[in-house]
Formats: sequence, C-alpha cells, structure tokens
Amino acid sequence: MTETFLAQDTATGSPVRLQAVAGPGQPEVTPALEELYRGFERELLVPLWTEIGDLMPAHPRSRAVPHVWRWQTLRQLAARAGDLVPVGRGGERRAIALANPSLGGRPFATPTLWAAIQYLMPGEDAPEHRHTQHAFRFVVEGSGVWTVVGGDPVPMNRGDFLPQAGWNWHAHHNATSEPMAWIDGLDIPFQHATEAQFFEFGRDGIGDAERVTPRRSRSERLWGHPGLRPLAATPAPYGSPLLSYKWEHTEAALRDQLRLEREGFGGTVEPGHAAVRYTSPHDGSDVLPTVRAEFHRVARGVETAPVRETGSSVYQVFDGSGVVTIGDASWTVTRGDLFAVPSWQPFTARSEAGATDSDGGALDLFRFSDAPVFEALGLHRTRKDT
Amino acid sequence: MTETFLAQDTATGSPVRLQAVAGPGQPEVTPALEELYRGFERELLVPLWTEIGDLMPAHPRSRAVPHVWRWQTLRQLAARAGDLVPVGRGGERRAIALANPSLGGRPFATPTLWAAIQYLMPGEDAPEHRHTQHAFRFVVEGSGVWTVVGGDPVPMNRGDFLPQAGWNWHAHHNATSEPMAWIDGLDIPFQHATEAQFFEFGRDGIGDAERVTPRRSRSERLWGHPGLRPLAATPAPYGSPLLSYKWEHTEAALRDQLRLEREGFGGTVEPGHAAVRYTSPHDGSDVLPTVRAEFHRVARGVETAPVRETGSSVYQVFDGSGVVTIGDASWTVTRGDLFAVPSWQPFTARSEAGATDSDGGALDLFRFSDAPVFEALGLHRTRKDT
Amino acid sequence: MTETFLAQDTATGSPVRLQAVAGPGQPEVTPALEELYRGFERELLVPLWTEIGDLMPAHPRSRAVPHVWRWQTLRQLAARAGDLVPVGRGGERRAIALANPSLGGRPFATPTLWAAIQYLMPGEDAPEHRHTQHAFRFVVEGSGVWTVVGGDPVPMNRGDFLPQAGWNWHAHHNATSEPMAWIDGLDIPFQHATEAQFFEFGRDGIGDAERVTPRRSRSERLWGHPGLRPLAATPAPYGSPLLSYKWEHTEAALRDQLRLEREGFGGTVEPGHAAVRYTSPHDGSDVLPTVRAEFHRVARGVETAPVRETGSSVYQVFDGSGVVTIGDASWTVTRGDLFAVPSWQPFTARSEAGATDSDGGALDLFRFSDAPVFEALGLHRTRKDT
Amino acid sequence: MTETFLAQDTATGSPVRLQAVAGPGQPEVTPALEELYRGFERELLVPLWTEIGDLMPAHPRSRAVPHVWRWQTLRQLAARAGDLVPVGRGGERRAIALANPSLGGRPFATPTLWAAIQYLMPGEDAPEHRHTQHAFRFVVEGSGVWTVVGGDPVPMNRGDFLPQAGWNWHAHHNATSEPMAWIDGLDIPFQHATEAQFFEFGRDGIGDAERVTPRRSRSERLWGHPGLRPLAATPAPYGSPLLSYKWEHTEAALRDQLRLEREGFGGTVEPGHAAVRYTSPHDGSDVLPTVRAEFHRVARGVETAPVRETGSSVYQVFDGSGVVTIGDASWTVTRGDLFAVPSWQPFTARSEAGATDSDGGALDLFRFSDAPVFEALGLHRTRKDT
Repeated sequence: MTETFLAQDTATGSPVRLQAVAGPGQPEVTPALEELYRGFERELLVPLWTEIGDLMPAHPRSRAVPHVWRWQTLRQLAARAGDLVPVGRGGERRAIALANPSLGGRPFATPTLWAAIQYLMPGEDAPEHRHTQHAFRFVVEGSGVWTVVGGDPVPMNRGDFLPQAGWNWHAHHNATSEPMAWIDGLDIPFQHATEAQFFEFGRDGIGDAERVTPRRSRSERLWGHPGLRPLAATPAPYGSPLLSYKWEHTEAALRDQLRLEREGFGGTVEPGHAAVRYTSPHDGSDVLPTVRAEFHRVARGVETAPVRETGSSVYQVFDGSGVVTIGDASWTVTRGDLFAVPSWQPFTARSEAGATDSDGGALDLFRFSDAPVFEALGLHRTRKDT
Repeated sequence: MTETFLAQDTATGSPVRLQAVAGPGQPEVTPALEELYRGFERELLVPLWTEIGDLMPAHPRSRAVPHVWRWQTLRQLAARAGDLVPVGRGGERRAIALANPSLGGRPFATPTLWAAIQYLMPGEDAPEHRHTQHAFRFVVEGSGVWTVVGGDPVPMNRGDFLPQAGWNWHAHHNATSEPMAWIDGLDIPFQHATEAQFFEFGRDGIGDAERVTPRRSRSERLWGHPGLRPLAATPAPYGSPLLSYKWEHTEAALRDQLRLEREGFGGTVEPGHAAVRYTSPHDGSDVLPTVRAEFHRVARGVETAPVRETGSSVYQVFDGSGVVTIGDASWTVTRGDLFAVPSWQPFTARSEAGATDSDGGALDLFRFSDAPVFEALGLHRTRKDT
Repeated sequence: MTETFLAQDTATGSPVRLQAVAGPGQPEVTPALEELYRGFERELLVPLWTEIGDLMPAHPRSRAVPHVWRWQTLRQLAARAGDLVPVGRGGERRAIALANPSLGGRPFATPTLWAAIQYLMPGEDAPEHRHTQHAFRFVVEGSGVWTVVGGDPVPMNRGDFLPQAGWNWHAHHNATSEPMAWIDGLDIPFQHATEAQFFEFGRDGIGDAERVTPRRSRSERLWGHPGLRPLAATPAPYGSPLLSYKWEHTEAALRDQLRLEREGFGGTVEPGHAAVRYTSPHDGSDVLPTVRAEFHRVARGVETAPVRETGSSVYQVFDGSGVVTIGDASWTVTRGDLFAVPSWQPFTARSEAGATDSDGGALDLFRFSDAPVFEALGLHRTRKDT
Repeated sequence: MTETFLAQDTATGSPVRLQAVAGPGQPEVTPALEELYRGFERELLVPLWTEIGDLMPAHPRSRAVPHVWRWQTLRQLAARAGDLVPVGRGGERRAIALANPSLGGRPFATPTLWAAIQYLMPGEDAPEHRHTQHAFRFVVEGSGVWTVVGGDPVPMNRGDFLPQAGWNWHAHHNATSEPMAWIDGLDIPFQHATEAQFFEFGRDGIGDAERVTPRRSRSERLWGHPGLRPLAATPAPYGSPLLSYKWEHTEAALRDQLRLEREGFGGTVEPGHAAVRYTSPHDGSDVLPTVRAEFHRVARGVETAPVRETGSSVYQVFDGSGVVTIGDASWTVTRGDLFAVPSWQPFTARSEAGATDSDGGALDLFRFSDAPVFEALGLHRTRKDT
C-alpha cells in the first residue's frame, strides 16, 4: 500500500498549503478554521469554496495565452537541429514543438493541441511507429518527403493536408537532395491530460516496395473521388480513410465559394470569407476524432467578424499577410507564421489590402482545433460578437 | 500585443530550462546543442526527442496514484466544516474534494474526475446555480435532503443515484433536523483541462412550491417506468431525463442477476459479480456525456478478475467490506470508503468471506469513471489480465 | 430466358390494357396515340401521364379504408376454430387475421400491418419457428399462455405487451385448463411488399426446462429495471431485449401522467390524454424496427384533437368505451374491439362520459403503427387539425 | 360509418372466397370448416394457416420476374411519344415506365422501384413540381438538357448521375435543337405501397435566371471537392447535397480500382470487378434515403460471382456488352438495355470477351436498388453463391 503525504507540488516537491483567506463567499478566518484546513491537508482534501473561482469560472479563462511563432525563426532553428540532431529510433522524429508561454514550459501550443515543425534532411528516414495520438501533417512549403502510412506512400507538397488517425503505422522518407520542413499537429496534450496513450515501435526500415514516389497515394486513388465510395473498402471505425487532401482541391473549393458569392448565391461564411472543413469521405465526420482541420481564405481587404469558441485552435498562415487579433492583442502575420487562439478568446483576421500575393491578396489560413472533443461531449459553444 | 518570456513554471515563476542529456535516442551533448536548446527556449519551443518518453509512453502511466480516503474521517471533517463554514452565495456548496496525492494539491481525485463529500446542516439551503460541468450525487447514508433541479424536487435516500447534466439549474435543501452528507461527482478536472466551463448564479432562494418533500420526483413519474417513454416529453440532446435512480431498483437488478446466474443462465459479468450501468431511458446512453456510473456487487468470497482500462475511476463502498487491489497496492475497505483507480492500473476487488453484512456478505461498490469521453473519441481500451 | 407477354392481371390472368382517355393533362386521343399505347403494351411499358394521379397524389390516399372488427365476434370465431382446426407444424399458428375490406381480400389490416387473433386450447403448443417478420403480442384478456423466446418462457397476462424482433426462435404453450386468446401484430404486409421474408422451422417440441411458468421472464429480470443496463448483456443490433412490458408498469405510467397534469406540471399529450411509447431499454428506439407500439389513455369525457399521420395504425380498445372517428366515419367501440386507421386519415377518440369502467371511465387504447419505417426513411409527416 | 362487405378483389369487384383445401399443415375439409370459413368471410377475416406459404416463405420469392427492356425500342417509342404527347402541367413529364411482366400491368420495374425513360424535345420545358418520392436521373446518351433543382441549373451529359431527394422543387429544360432521352429512377412503388406520398405543383415557367447552361451546378461548386465540406452550408437532414456526380469522376474511380488491383493492392470487389457507390459528401450515406445507386465495371472476359440480396435492383448497361444471368435466365445485353433483378434471385454479369468497346471491352453497368430501406430496418441479407 502506498503511503500518503501532504499534497506536494509535482514540479518543486514543496508541500501545497491551503490558505484561509477572508473574502466574498469565504468563511471568516479563525484559528478553528485554520485547524480545519490543516485537517483537510492531512487527509488530502481540498474545499470547493476556496477553489470555485478558478474551477468554475463564469466562462472559460484559459491558462494559455495568445501567441505568435515566426516561421522564419522556426525554419532556421529546425535547420540547425538538422545539422546537430540525428533522427532515429528513440527520439523518433526531428520535431520541435510550440510551447505556449503560460503553460509551464510544456510543449503544448494550447492545453489540448500539439503543433511542431518537423524537419527531414535529404535521404533521411524517420522510423516507423504508431501511437494512439491522432495526428496530421500540413505542408506550407517544399516537397519531396512522403509519409508511408500502413505501407501506402503519400507524397507531400505545398498545401497538402495529411490526416492520420491513431494507431496507424507510419514513417517518413525524404527522397530528394533538399531538406524539407512541415508542421505536425497532434492531440498529445489532450491525451496527456486524459491519459489515453499507447505507443509502439515499428519496423526499423522502410520496405523497398514503399520507396516509391507516387503522384497519388493508394488512399487517394480509392477514396479521393468526390461522393464516390469504393464498394470494396472497409474503413476503420474512426478517422478519414483519405490520407491526403491535395492543395489543388482545396484551392478550387475556396475559389468556387468566392465566385458563387460574387454571383449572388452565397456559399461563404461571411462576405469575402471562404472556408472548408477537411472531412472523412466515408461518413463526413471530422478527419480525426479529436482534431478538426479547416482552411480559411479571407479576401483582400476583408476583416472577419470576431468569434469566440470553447476550445482552442492553432493557425498557420499559408499565403498572403494580414493582421490577426486574439483577445486584446494584435499581430501582423505572414507566410508560415503560426499562432494559438485560446478557449473563448475572440478572434478576427484581416487581410492586408496592399499585399500582392498569388491569390489576389487573400490571406490564406490553415486552422486546426479541438472542436470534435467539445461537440462529441455536448460542450461546444460559439458566440459571434457584433 | 503580449510580450514573450522564457517559459516559466506557472506555480513557481522560475524559468523552465531544457536540459541536454545524453541517452538512448538522444543526441550527444555538445556546446552547439546547448546553444540550440537556448535558442529553443528563447523562441518558446521544445523538442519532441527530449519529451517523447513522458508524452508518448508505451501505455498510459498516470500522474495520479491509487489512493483510499476513509469515510469516517471525511464525515468528521465535513461535520466540523458544518460548524465553521456557512453555505451561501459565493462559496456555493459545503463540498470537500478528494485531492489525489500526486496531482499537485489540486482537488482532483483523478486527472479527469472530481469527487467530494457535501454536507448540509438542518434547514440549510445550498443556493441555486448552474454550470456546464456534468454532475451527480450518490447517497451512502442518511436522508432528508432533496435537490431541486429545474424546479423539480428530487428526494435523496441511501443508495439513490442522481445524475444532472450540465447547465441545469439546481439547489439543495435539508428539510430535516439532522445534518446529511453525500458525495458529489463531477467532470471538473476534465473541463478544467479542456477549458469548457460556464457558470451562472440562479435565484437566491428556493421557491415555496419547491419546498415539498415528495416521495418521487416529477422526472421519475415521467421517465421511471421501465421501457416506457412518455409521448409528450422532449428530452434535452444529452444527459438522462431521469433525475433519480432509486436504490430499490438497483438492488432488485443486482439480486436478479445473481439469481439468474445461480439458475444457470448467466447474467453476471463474471461468476459472483453482478453489475449495472445507469443509463438514460431516453436513448440508453450514459447518464452524463462525460461520466459513466455503475453499481457492482461482488458476492461473498468472490474476487473479480484484474482489469485495466484507459481512463480513471472513483469507487465508493456502499456496503460490505473487502480488499481492493489497484496496481501493486491493496487496501481493506468498508462502508463509505472512497478510492481512486488511475488509468491502466489493474484493479480487482474481493469481498471479505467472513463479513455479515446486509447483503449476505456481498461487497457493494458504486463506481464512476470518464469512460464516455474515451468511447466517444475512439480512445477506449480494456484488458483483462488472466 | 423467360418469354415476355402482355402485362397481365395477376389475379385474373386477363391482359391489362392502357386506355387513352382525354382529360386534363392528357394528350388528345387519336389513332396514332392508340397505336403508341399498343406499342407500350407490347414492350411492357406504361406512361407516367396516365398514372400520375394515382401514383403521385397531392397527399396519401390510402387503398385501405377505416374499419372496426368486434372482439366478441372474433372471439367466437376463434373459439370455433379451436374446435375445428388443430395447431401444428405447417399451419404453425391458430391465428385469424383482419382483412381490410378494400385490400382485395388479403389478410392485411392496413397496407403494411398484420393484426390477428390467436387462440390456444388448454395444453396446446404452437410449434417453434422463426421468421424475419417483426412481431408482438398484446393481451386484452385472459392469462395462462406463455411464449418461449430463445428458450426464455415469457408469461402473458391482461395488459402485457410482448415484442419480438425478427429471427428469434419462439413457440407458445398454454399451461392452463382454459383456452386463451390474444392479438398478434406483425409487419407481414410490409415485408410482403418489399420481399424481405425468411422463415425457418424450429424444434418440434418445447424443452422440459422451458415448461415452467415463471412470474417474470429472464429478459425482464435482466432488462426490466428502469434506466439500469445489465453490464454483461450484449443485445442484438435491433429490437428490444426486453420481451415483456407488464401492465402494472404501463398502468402506473399513465396514472402518473394524468396526476402530473392535475398538479399543473403537464406530462400529457394534450389535456386528459396520457400516452406512452414502448421502447427498447437498450437504446430508447422503437421496440421493433418496423413497428411502433403505444398505449393511450383518454380520460373520461375527453376528446383527442384530430391528427393525421403518414402511415397506418391498428388500435385495440383495452378498457372503457367511447367513440372513434376516422376520416368521415364514427364507431362506438368497447373492450377488445380493433380498428384500422389508414394513412393520412384524421383520427380522434372520445371516451364515453357515462361509462363506469375500472379506470374511472377512461378509454384505454393500445396502438401499433408503421411509424418507424417512415421515420427511418425521412417520410414521416404529421398534422394536427384544429 | 362505412358498411362492410365481403372482401372483394379490387380489380374485378368479384368477391374473394376462402377455399378450404386439405394439404400438409391444413385442417381436414368438413362442412363445419366450410361454415367457419364463410364466417371468416362475413367478418373480413383470413386465417394464417391457408396463407402462410405465400406470406412467410422460407426465403423471398418475388412477385416480380427478371426481365430485359431494350434501349433501342424504348428510344423509338419515346421519340414517337415526343411527336404525339405534349409535356405540360397535369401530365408533368414525358416519362414511360418499365412494367414488370408479373406485377399486374402496373408501371413498376420491381415491387419497390420505378424506372422510366424520359424524353424532352428541343426547347421544351418540363414544368416545376415537387414530391416526396426520392428520384434520380442517369444519362446513358446525349446532352443538352439541364434540371433546375431549387433554382440551381444542373447540366446532364452522358454518364452523369443526378440524385434528388424528396420535396425539392425541380423542372427540366432542353436548351438544344436535339431531343434528349435519359432514365429516371424513383421509389414510386415503395411509396405507393407504404402510402407516404405528397405532391405539389410549382411555378408554371422556369425563371430567366435559371435559363443558363452552366458547366457545373452550384451544388457541385460547393460540394464537389473530395473530402472538403463547405463551412457555410447547412444540408437537409437526408439526401445528398451534391446534385450531380459527373462521369469524369466515376470513370477515374473505376480506372483507379482496376489499376490498383493490377499493381497487387486490391481495391476491387472481386478480380476484374470495380465498383463505386454514389454517396452523400455530407455524411457518406446513400444519396437517397430509399434508393442506392452504384456503378460497376466488369473487365473484359470477367464474370462476377453470383450474389443474392434481399430487395431488388434495376441495371442499365452504360457501355460494352455481355451476358447477364438472373435466376435461371440469361440475356445478352448491350448499351442502354435495362433489366430488373428481383429479390433473392442470384445475379451474375459477364463481359463479352471479343467486344471492342471504349473501355477496353469492359461491361459498364449502372445499378440502383432499394437496399437503404432494408439496411435501415434490419432486413438486409446477402449471400454469395460459390
């Protein structure tokens, strides 16, 4: 049987003490009350009345703060890691994660989401493994790496989105003579909080048959035709069977929405704001059980209406530049920059009018969030401020 | 715009430093690597390769530890709080929560579950409020308090289970001349981790029309007839519309299972182990979107097979006594004792052969867990060790 | 290869001829048109424009008509069949079905529903079989017969409702010295229309172990406790695992609703009209995939508001007496009488004010319908006429 | 109150008589039995024991028979109807339906499915209406007509599939100088059997804004991008929001499956047999609640394994030629030919080895069936004979 101690701070090892403080809704501080509190401590108990403000706030008050990470800086540090840190069994991936400034130095972009830059040198392999954490890759620049998922090589090019539900074997290979960087998104913090994680090492190398560089993965050839389900396929109970959402389709969908709007037929979220959600062609659900992924295009000169949502998001600027406002703070952002939007913080994005980008000055934003968790559990709320 | 700092420990304020340590899967420590790590710190980045063991373990390794809280001690401290701490607006409830020894002094029985003893003095009201946290009450002893949920007074007696989905108005009233204690279970730690919480104060008093002491709540009169749905009712999208599961029904169900087993027809989880899950009569789902509640009866002399599950549980001994083993530790437990079972820790319970309890020596266990979260998100796993 | 013929009436064998008739929306009758129609006939073709009025009416116009069958008459004819017609393998059941007057002499109460009186003499067995047709039994009088479903003997007493999803083995046994009659409801006409039926003979006799007369079936002991799911049970993908809904529960539910209404809390469908739906305790769905079953109590002197629904129903008067109006016709009905309500015919029931029945003059109506078919396929509509 | 009569045959008006016939499972014929049967007739009752063989067969024995309709003949008769029969309000559509030889001359290809050739002359409009019957169009040849669904003009070209869930306004317009023919599929017989139909006339003309000939409908621009859901769209509760599945996508999907198979990766239903199901991009369900649509490609020289299914299908040969076997009968079929496969009849198709068709000799088959009805109601069964 384990012995019990006074509660201790896990980081510092020092005992945590209950403090009797007078205040609204709090009992008067007396020696008897102090003694009661010492009794609570001995028995590993904590009263609600001292904690209720933190635990049951009027609305979500995130431990995380809004923050922007600059792609240029990330890219340089990742390249330096490419020189210094080998990729191999044990470390598994040359991935460098965003650590929200107020989450205690943990590699958590938000309380539930992991976002990292991954970097692979020419000819390198990242070894095969699998884990219950749901994951995806999104490519803001470059090409040449492919991910092998369950033996199916999936190419990666600018604008491609590659979801990969938990417990699928996967490895990466850089088949080119150039290094390549992309972002990984996972639900690592969520699964860390709920303690759901399993992990397994796979084969040490990638099979020769998997060392091909196809234009389309097998998953795309089976599942990538709009509205057409392959009769012979039996997809897993969750997660998209489509392993890559190519940029050409995303781009076409956004362009179509903005044109429909110009023709007077709606189709956009709000004027000048087109958006798609990546969904499973099998059942229309989110591509991953715990992660939603979307792509937003904000036309030149447009500012989106401020929206609050329960749950948090991470964005990456795919193209264009503009100004994003999260809560009280604003940042000018440009290609590759990443930023975190904590729970219930109002968010708005404005494309820069004067930009001369490839998409006519639009601000293109890739977004992922933990919304499926909230929707599955009856906890999703959203509010559009006007 | 917020300024950025080195990552800091939220509790201590001291900077968190990345440490370059040689080891399996880790790069060799060099001055260049140290410099790279200082760069990561400046930019609020953390590499995966130093964290992977903690974040992506081979199987869940809970931050929580198994622990037992003794009912007699809880009861005494709660009674003392009854003398010293008024119940009223602001503090809201005289509830004292179990704090798992290794969760940093937070009032979390496990990383996702809150369990507290609540105590109400004769004639006292606990004021009306509502919150998104999903909650229930379970009564191990006493009677006389009723909970008013949305204007419907629900009596509370030994063995009764009262679920209450998030965002329902509720208050408590002790209509007797005796104090009463019971346990509250909520998903407070889960909603704290995901930052989903809303809270609202209600009316200051309970209406006179609600100050009745009915034998059955209105919810039971509408929804408490087995398999019979009231045609006129329109239940909420989640959460059980039945606000009380009376002991007489739970008892009858357990007794029936054990008798069916004796007659040779199965019906039990394993020999001598009867169990029911509290479910919504509307759709058969768990009574709360984030919390599963069950009642287990382990017949005299029986030991349950060790089972591991993702996610955590809290148990309360309702009757009988016995020995519970969680991971490597064992405890003798008796009526009212509460204990926490962390994620993936094997659990087994044995009823004490010699006990002469009301149910023929059976060990009766009320259990609640976070299983619905895991099932909804494709993260549920269970393993029966043999 | 089959040869083709002119279309023929299946009953008479005479050729069916397309008739060219002038009228609104119809082409002018010319020799060329007549010749075209002869060409259609030769090639087994029929134009839409001559049929659209029948096939695509503005609203459902049922082929069935409202009709009442008198219990006393049914009872007498069934008793006479008890004398003359043995029950055994081949004929399988001494069941006599209601044949709607306008459905061509087929044993169909409505286009989708079968309703029959079944009659079993003292000591008789109805042999075991199974079929894909979903079935139930409802008992308006008597007792002493039990149904063995998958080896589980289920007693039958006045007011009990016994659903039995397709493909379950079942037999009946009359263990008493009195004959017994009850009604069977099935989706025979629906499965005949869609051609989904499978049928299999079972064992020739009932096992000795099944020749017991329990007070409660095993299914009730497992599944009959309100809101409590047996942890060990794995119910079939459809159909209720609860094989009997005893009258005492139905009665209590109806009484509770009327009392709640009197106390000012609603709970009824409309003033004086209580109603429950029989549902699966496993998932709250209808007890059978194709058949909905309900019980309605219309308090003394109350008349229900006229309601139209897509799909058809059959009612049996369980107690009391009153007047039912279906479309333009009205009937006085009393205990045991059965009547059919065709699709989209307005229906209303009025309890007779002066009756001195056991339930204080209430008109108690058992009802079954094909509503689950319509709801599953997006075809359900209802309209309350005011 | 309606009077009751002896049951009458609806077609002939002659009374239907119960016949007492001795035989297995039937009672001996006696004068008393004859008298009992006359009593049944008077009271509109029919015993089960004389009907059970027809109503509860060991497996489905369809009233329908396999049959082939030749496209050339259909086409000619439709063209003749184009000369003789105007299209307009009342008749609504110049549609000529397949009438299964054994379904009594009704325009039902099978007991649940309607299939018709529709024909529109140059410049003609088919007026706007809506109905609860779920419908689709499939184009085996020609182009130039578009369907306006809810104001959205949808072009129609060879190989395109256009689903349209019930209760959507729709009209057709032939914008060219050539007549055009295509096939319509609906669940008219099913809704006729269940009596669920509503119908409403729409505007008399097509609006000028709808008289455009777009390359893609608005529905395709919103919903036709693989796996990408438009964030702003709120689709109806059932039926696909994608109004056209263009041939280019179907063709690509089939080609991909056969190539994957050749590369050793499976992807086909069986060797040489590729197939896709048309599904809703919103939720992956069948395009219509009551109708499933698929496209099958049988490679040159391949014969599919015989399969039986509950429920019925209609096929149209889109390209190639071959031999189809349904039950005991075989037919040689070629482009445009339609055939009906009744419930539980084994079906196999063989492509003709020597053919020199556009798809390398493959037999391309469009298929629709009532499978969603069977799946939704727990009635679906399939058996592969080997």
